[in-house]
Amino acid sequence: MFEAAIASAAGRIEAELERIMAPLPDQPVIEGMRYACRGGKRLRGFLVMEGARLHGIGPEQSVVAACAAEALHAYSLVHDDLPCMDDDDLRRGQPTVHVKWDEATAVLVGDALQTLAFDLLARPECAPQAEVRVALIASFARAVGAEGMVLGQAQDIAAETAGRMLTLEEITELQVNKTGALICWSGAAGALLAQADPQPLTDYAAALGAAFQIADDILDVEGDAAEVGKAVGKDAEAGKATFVSLLGLEGAKARARLLVEQAEAALEPYGAEALALKEAARFVIARNK
Amino acid sequence: MFEAAIASAAGRIEAELERIMAPLPDQPVIEGMRYACRGGKRLRGFLVMEGARLHGIGPEQSVVAACAAEALHAYSLVHDDLPCMDDDDLRRGQPTVHVKWDEATAVLVGDALQTLAFDLLARPECAPQAEVRVALIASFARAVGAEGMVLGQAQDIAAETAGRMLTLEEITELQVNKTGALICWSGAAGALLAQADPQPLTDYAAALGAAFQIADDILDVEGDAAEVGKAVGKDAEAGKATFVSLLGLEGAKARARLLVEQAEAALEPYGAEALALKEAARFVIARNK
Repeated sequence: MFEAAIASAAGRIEAELERIMAPLPDQPVIEGMRYACRGGKRLRGFLVMEGARLHGIGPEQSVVAACAAEALHAYSLVHDDLPCMDDDDLRRGQPTVHVKWDEATAVLVGDALQTLAFDLLARPECAPQAEVRVALIASFARAVGAEGMVLGQAQDIAAETAGRMLTLEEITELQVNKTGALICWSGAAGALLAQADPQPLTDYAAALGAAFQIADDILDVEGDAAEVGKAVGKDAEAGKATFVSLLGLEGAKARARLLVEQAEAALEPYGAEALALKEAARFVIARNK
Repeated sequence: MFEAAIASAAGRIEAELERIMAPLPDQPVIEGMRYACRGGKRLRGFLVMEGARLHGIGPEQSVVAACAAEALHAYSLVHDDLPCMDDDDLRRGQPTVHVKWDEATAVLVGDALQTLAFDLLARPECAPQAEVRVALIASFARAVGAEGMVLGQAQDIAAETAGRMLTLEEITELQVNKTGALICWSGAAGALLAQADPQPLTDYAAALGAAFQIADDILDVEGDAAEVGKAVGKDAEAGKATFVSLLGLEGAKARARLLVEQAEAALEPYGAEALALKEAARFVIARNK
């Protein structure tokens, strides 16, 4: 159920991103944008589209907001991978943008992908009502800016600079900002598109996002670099606090399972219709990449 | 007239930017955002507010869109100054963000300032009508993304990488994208706020932006680093094509004067009310910083 749904969403998202970027001028920065948008699980886009479906919004409409979430996510990865940030050479099994091109191109690719995300949310294809688009844009800006994703990044850097292990509370807050905020927005977007109450899907996505991050820390310990598609063991090597270092492997797994139960419980109002989202929650802690 | 008007606009913009960023969390990245937004001529913000005034929109409203233009401009400068881009240590007479903090912080400061710009345009204070905000956001995204400002940056980098002098046509196109697009948007924003025809102000701002860029090239040759507030003579040293190298100093000055006349002519529909904008056009080629 979930695997078919996310594969279908991913197919639509990839085709739409190709279509959107087709008219852009022939420049390395545009090639880099296309490259950075390739591959990945499309979890955020899937959440947008599946949440929209639950509110009666079809895929031909919801794919636009899904592409905004994926373009924003791609920008964050390109900038995160820069030498001055996480300095990663490999992403989704491929050379990162600054390795394939150069740092200047990677900065511009990320910059332009952020703009593209807002551009998409402002298009009439995203939602016919201007007030819906503006509500999506306002919540998106809060999720990805200095009160959300960028704040999480900054907290991450501050912790590393201070050379001090974060507490469980601090790392939880950091992850809520760094990865949780965009996942929450992606969950809520479908309800916002239908001008419905976004609370159940927001609660679901908050728990899912937290479980996802713990699973990421577990993969960094247990995963295989070839399967994961990026370097593993980096956090332990860097002496960085993670959910695994703070809770132990079994403790982290137990917490992730609890979060999955919370995510499933939040979907109660949607009944059997929400099966794919329930399976998604179970999937994020069972994945091997 | 112009000097009083831009000083008044700058004062309002600076107070509003302070107010907007006051509630943000206490982090180096937020300090960096405030720092990057300090100083500067506020030409873009002034254009927004003066264009708005011509359409009956008061400063308490137009200052929001003016702050969006200035936040976007500040982001572009922070990223442009990075070591992998123009590698500048000095901006507006002060150390650049990556010198005062570090490169990672500078990347995040720019990223968050771009988000803030879109955030501001989505706020009800920017315009009560959702359709006005969405129109501003859509045109803003086109001006600053991969079809506008970032494209211009990419064309600039491509020319340097190729190690080949640009032609007059190419450098004109590059500047239309790199600096012209945001200046044009700033000019048009006031009309968009009033749901009026943006064409006269767009034509004005296009000519003004082109004159501004030629004046920048002239300052790079004739200016004094201490007065200009950044390094001068860099383009000539790098063997980079500029309007001065292509047209000669007198040719460049003549072209700038012609553009100022075009800018003034575009303001015809506004009559005597547009005096400050007319003076602004004359000012950009007479400035010494």
